[in-house]
Amino acid sequence: MNNIITSKDNPVIKLYQKLSSSKKERLQYGLFVLEGLRIVEDAVKEHADLTHLIITERAAEKDGSLLQADLRDTKVIVISNELGSRIASTDSTQGIFAICRIPESRRLLIKGNGRYIVLFGLQDPGNAGMIIRTADALGVDGIIMSGSCDLYSPKVIRSTMGSVFRTEILIENDADELFRYLAENGVVTSAAVIDKDADTISSIGFSGCQAVFIGNEGNGLPAEISARCTRRITIPMNGTINSLNAAMAAGIIMWELTKN
Amino acid sequence: MNNIITSKDNPVIKLYQKLSSSKKERLQYGLFVLEGLRIVEDAVKEHADLTHLIITERAAEKDGSLLQADLRDTKVIVISNELGSRIASTDSTQGIFAICRIPESRRLLIKGNGRYIVLFGLQDPGNAGMIIRTADALGVDGIIMSGSCDLYSPKVIRSTMGSVFRTEILIENDADELFRYLAENGVVTSAAVIDKDADTISSIGFSGCQAVFIGNEGNGLPAEISARCTRRITIPMNGTINSLNAAMAAGIIMWELTKN
Repeated sequence: MNNIITSKDNPVIKLYQKLSSSKKERLQYGLFVLEGLRIVEDAVKEHADLTHLIITERAAEKDGSLLQADLRDTKVIVISNELGSRIASTDSTQGIFAICRIPESRRLLIKGNGRYIVLFGLQDPGNAGMIIRTADALGVDGIIMSGSCDLYSPKVIRSTMGSVFRTEILIENDADELFRYLAENGVVTSAAVIDKDADTISSIGFSGCQAVFIGNEGNGLPAEISARCTRRITIPMNGTINSLNAAMAAGIIMWELTKN
Repeated sequence: MNNIITSKDNPVIKLYQKLSSSKKERLQYGLFVLEGLRIVEDAVKEHADLTHLIITERAAEKDGSLLQADLRDTKVIVISNELGSRIASTDSTQGIFAICRIPESRRLLIKGNGRYIVLFGLQDPGNAGMIIRTADALGVDGIIMSGSCDLYSPKVIRSTMGSVFRTEILIENDADELFRYLAENGVVTSAAVIDKDADTISSIGFSGCQAVFIGNEGNGLPAEISARCTRRITIPMNGTINSLNAAMAAGIIMWELTKN
């Protein structure tokens, strides 16, 4: 194998590290990073637009089958194991990394009976990733992120377990624009709240085109956003606990939203 | 404030550290540790049997109200901030720690229409904690842990967010004993599996006394355990994903189990 890169000053390695640590750089370049065999395989399988595949010598020997995939538009770079350890986010890295193009912002194609989730002000990357993974498993038709954590941060991407490549995700940070878009498409909007007087998710129907708003982990949805939704819905809970974890609550709501 | 402890060789500090890192020591002493204001407050509120409250000088000034609680049977120890940082599990410790007695193993009091979850071979502490937290929120009547991770490890305790003190939890590692006990009490057992031919959780009823078995994150339930259950149940999923996260799957099942 020729041209094994060992220098941390290699321009691709420097780019990888910038994208890994900075949202600003991700936005500027329109690129984000992946790490790990499974997520890179998922990206290849789902025809994500990989600009670079970066693989350590050890991984090239062990997981070489990845290199047999159709990587026509992807530049493959082999790096030393030491350099792999340096750019890895975990101590036990598999030595497989990629740089991927952020898809152009586009409209979700709202379907007549589509089921959607709006993450409004959700901040924890692990929660965002788990919600995206669960949405994929349960067959939610699309996710809209508004004022939430960066979808393309390594933590969110990792915790989606590849579902980021299989799920329609729109980023719309302008609340007015978001409500206008949903109204234009005849979407019924529900605000998920913690309030005994709101409608219980098991007693109401989710017929037609539906979107449920999930709020911030600590503060829930802003009152003004909740008031703009068609209705307010809740998961009945025991008196002794403040709330379910946000991702768990979203999962239970998505289950009710999609099960019929 | 007198007698501020600064030495890492103080016997209570040494005990705290042993209990924090070793399951064997926890079993031997019948004690486990807590860290953080909220969980220690929950323990006090739920009358957990605290043997020691360990608090840094800084925390004693800031969160002194904790010391006003009824701590008759609890020895209170003030330590230096430096020693607090040393025994803390996080960089940003609140400086509040406790040692708590493990409740004596006892039978769950199985109720006529009770709803139970059996964690069988579940290994991830974060998943176990999140399931216990969700069980508490949704009003599950009890949890049985069998061949699973240690309930009293700091990671499980932390991720229950205090629900460990509000939830009935039985540890029964002998599968024969477990099935005998459930059968004696007329409990209908369901094995949660990933199998399109199993009964869909939304189409079956959960009437009478019910226990659902949740298996290992990677391997699910052993076939022999699944076969011993009354029936096999599943969450229908999209074809493109292997499975929901174990805690999320358990949460959705507990929602169906308890909602009527």
